[in-house]
Amino acid sequence: MGAQDSATENVGAVCAAAGAAAVVYARTSRAERAQLLHAIADELSADREEIERLARAETALSPARLAGEMNRTINQARLFAGVLDDGGYLGASIDRATAATPDLRRTRVPIGAVAVFGASNFPLAFSVPGGDTVSALAAGCPVVVKAHPGHPLTSARTFEAMSRAVARLALPSATLSLVSGFEAGRELVLDPNIRAVGFTGSTGAGRALFDLASSRPQPIPFFGELGSLNPVVVTRAAARARGRRIAEQLATSISGSAGQLCTKPNLLFVPDADGDDLVEHLTAALRAVPAQVLLNDTVQERFSESAARWANEPGAAVLADGGPGQHGARLISIDVGQLSDAFLEESFGPAAVVVRYQDGDALPAVLDALGGQLTMSLMLEGEDVTAVAALTEAMTRMAGRLVFNDVPTGVAVVWSMTHGGPYPATTNAAHTSVGSAAIDRWLRPVSFQDAPPELLPEELRDDAIGIPRRVDGMLMALASVSA
Amino acid sequence: MGAQDSATENVGAVCAAAGAAAVVYARTSRAERAQLLHAIADELSADREEIERLARAETALSPARLAGEMNRTINQARLFAGVLDDGGYLGASIDRATAATPDLRRTRVPIGAVAVFGASNFPLAFSVPGGDTVSALAAGCPVVVKAHPGHPLTSARTFEAMSRAVARLALPSATLSLVSGFEAGRELVLDPNIRAVGFTGSTGAGRALFDLASSRPQPIPFFGELGSLNPVVVTRAAARARGRRIAEQLATSISGSAGQLCTKPNLLFVPDADGDDLVEHLTAALRAVPAQVLLNDTVQERFSESAARWANEPGAAVLADGGPGQHGARLISIDVGQLSDAFLEESFGPAAVVVRYQDGDALPAVLDALGGQLTMSLMLEGEDVTAVAALTEAMTRMAGRLVFNDVPTGVAVVWSMTHGGPYPATTNAAHTSVGSAAIDRWLRPVSFQDAPPELLPEELRDDAIGIPRRVDGMLMALASVSA
Repeated sequence: MGAQDSATENVGAVCAAAGAAAVVYARTSRAERAQLLHAIADELSADREEIERLARAETALSPARLAGEMNRTINQARLFAGVLDDGGYLGASIDRATAATPDLRRTRVPIGAVAVFGASNFPLAFSVPGGDTVSALAAGCPVVVKAHPGHPLTSARTFEAMSRAVARLALPSATLSLVSGFEAGRELVLDPNIRAVGFTGSTGAGRALFDLASSRPQPIPFFGELGSLNPVVVTRAAARARGRRIAEQLATSISGSAGQLCTKPNLLFVPDADGDDLVEHLTAALRAVPAQVLLNDTVQERFSESAARWANEPGAAVLADGGPGQHGARLISIDVGQLSDAFLEESFGPAAVVVRYQDGDALPAVLDALGGQLTMSLMLEGEDVTAVAALTEAMTRMAGRLVFNDVPTGVAVVWSMTHGGPYPATTNAAHTSVGSAAIDRWLRPVSFQDAPPELLPEELRDDAIGIPRRVDGMLMALASVSA
Repeated sequence: MGAQDSATENVGAVCAAAGAAAVVYARTSRAERAQLLHAIADELSADREEIERLARAETALSPARLAGEMNRTINQARLFAGVLDDGGYLGASIDRATAATPDLRRTRVPIGAVAVFGASNFPLAFSVPGGDTVSALAAGCPVVVKAHPGHPLTSARTFEAMSRAVARLALPSATLSLVSGFEAGRELVLDPNIRAVGFTGSTGAGRALFDLASSRPQPIPFFGELGSLNPVVVTRAAARARGRRIAEQLATSISGSAGQLCTKPNLLFVPDADGDDLVEHLTAALRAVPAQVLLNDTVQERFSESAARWANEPGAAVLADGGPGQHGARLISIDVGQLSDAFLEESFGPAAVVVRYQDGDALPAVLDALGGQLTMSLMLEGEDVTAVAALTEAMTRMAGRLVFNDVPTGVAVVWSMTHGGPYPATTNAAHTSVGSAAIDRWLRPVSFQDAPPELLPEELRDDAIGIPRRVDGMLMALASVSA
């Protein structure tokens, strides 16, 4: 436990305060929470220069990358203000009484105080002020963030800015809290006041915390985004038609942010013969990538280990070896028949494996065997739909997002995004951690039977205006009930 | 293991077939699955006389109750056909490309083969042809049902009727399968081809299976509906104004179906003094309930044990003792200060505990301490809203359904129903096992980025008509996209 780590008794007190704040915060209106999110965006904007400076020093990420991440983080907070304004996320539904059934009205309420684990590779967008935090605040849940040890000063500084917003709106200060340290993380997941967890990180750590969350006397949902190989399939026709162009796209995707993205492609399925040109250009492009500094020593160490493991597998050919000092990008090539378990572990850093295939018809079964993925991508070129139908079906079974004719890196923060997927991509395939639907994780439904109107949440009252809801089974966008 | 139980190797083969059927069944259209559900309803209707006769013999439930349950079961299958027709459950969303973001389209796809555990107390509505099964079939998931040992013939007979519907639509026969036996249940939950579990039963069995599902190499969601105390709070004003009427409602609710309902009220919070009349009439009504036959010997044994445990708690007064032979209803009275852990375990059978209170303002904290519940009910009479606001808030925190001025038994199968609640009412508070939203459990989101139109699911194509969806963030009921 580091000097800055939260003491265990302190974590208990923080969670108790968050639990108490949950009662008060659940009373806020959607408009008030939207105000909070805009205030958070404003405070982050005001301090962005200093925050980005700290993040740069702590993560070695480039100024341009961090400026982009800050923009995304600010926009993300405002996006959820829009989600609150829309109100559709409540799934409000009214069934008026019939001869056989009572008046029943359904909405969704906040689940209670939530724990969020910051990620190493996104000191802003997936850390203290990230999507997990703002989506939970939008839902009406206080948040206790466990800071990632890789960027403690950035965490403290963003927390300070956000806390000003909380104070400005006269909300309980425990609406947002910050703890740090490995043991604090375990305590958080086990604390009875914590009702759900959001996590982005490694498969090992994520699974250990998922197991803890599931083992509690009162189990809680654990929304973990773990590892992903993000396979990219290049059809024979696409390799033939635009192998060089695809090679350029892939090289950028593999080496951007030094390959430290959860959507970085790890496995590239390229046809034999017709794919030679693509592989040649990809190799050249990755060899030309300058030496890169990874997030921290642990990341660098693990990356070197995984690259070495790949290189030693039977049949592996090293196309790019990281160059002098081995701080450049790496590329390995194998035949699809040699796709052993060693290649099914994500390599976090600028590296990928080219998997050469002969028979495209065998690929759906290969994809099925890879396990759940955040993304699967397909580069195609004028094929008949029937020729790729089986591939698309396999991709749909195994991934949260299907990408066509582009690389998987770059996760748009929009309504239709799914940043999720079957295990081990996530511990809960029914949800996304990016985009508007991320708010769904922090809600549970409640039905009101024959409730006096004054005791109903606003969105379930007859005279509520401007909220999408079902009335007697019919979805009405922006309609109000007339009796 | 009984003579009729499924052998372990057989369970593996059944699940493998269900897994293979999942690929085929996922290709069906919503219209085809709606046809299947109507066919299932038709086949159950055709055989209802014989099915109800078998259920009567196996469960001791009354003919009227079973006829009602059969109607509900048939209507439930047709309800999900309506949910498919509506299409809103897909949450279809389209974000067209902008300068900064690609074309992204989101829908929900079936999660894969599902295991369903039949319940003892509803041989139809929560067993082979029950809500878990038909909602999963609606979602596009094959189902393997584990028959409840309490009604094997009813299970086999309903399975046979439903299988005729599967065959009539030329679907893989493994779209619906039946296994039986304790060990088969464990095998099912652990089988890699099973991707989610629906369960209705005891807290002990449910938690054990939840733990198994969470411990898998690839953990799967376990939707368990476990125990609930369904507390009913009678305000001082309501007790004074209509104590006798409330007593009648409660007596019916406690003794109906011999108290073997998951929504039976176990705890009745009644004010001191002003509640005397209510308690007196409730006592008389329950003493007058004729001897009842419970579902089976195990249920009877457990019921007798729990009633004895209650009676022996400090401060417990026995108001109704089950009469001669002890097969009637039971009523115990305690003071709210004596609400020990013994009373926090559901008693499955015709019994309830009257909890007398002095201070209504103390009740919210008492409710908070009871743990998650399927329902909480409030009998009130002309109180000012502010007087019951804290109670309503506590009920919202702790229950899936809030009932006003009525008893919790009777679960309407409609769009706005929530039959769920925080643990231990369920293992997953985000969902309901009754009503239209029950389909949500068997789906996961998938996003399509820049997909060629021919590779998109029908509901995500520009020209899809008659399906509610978001377009560029705006919810459009029954609208189509125009470019």
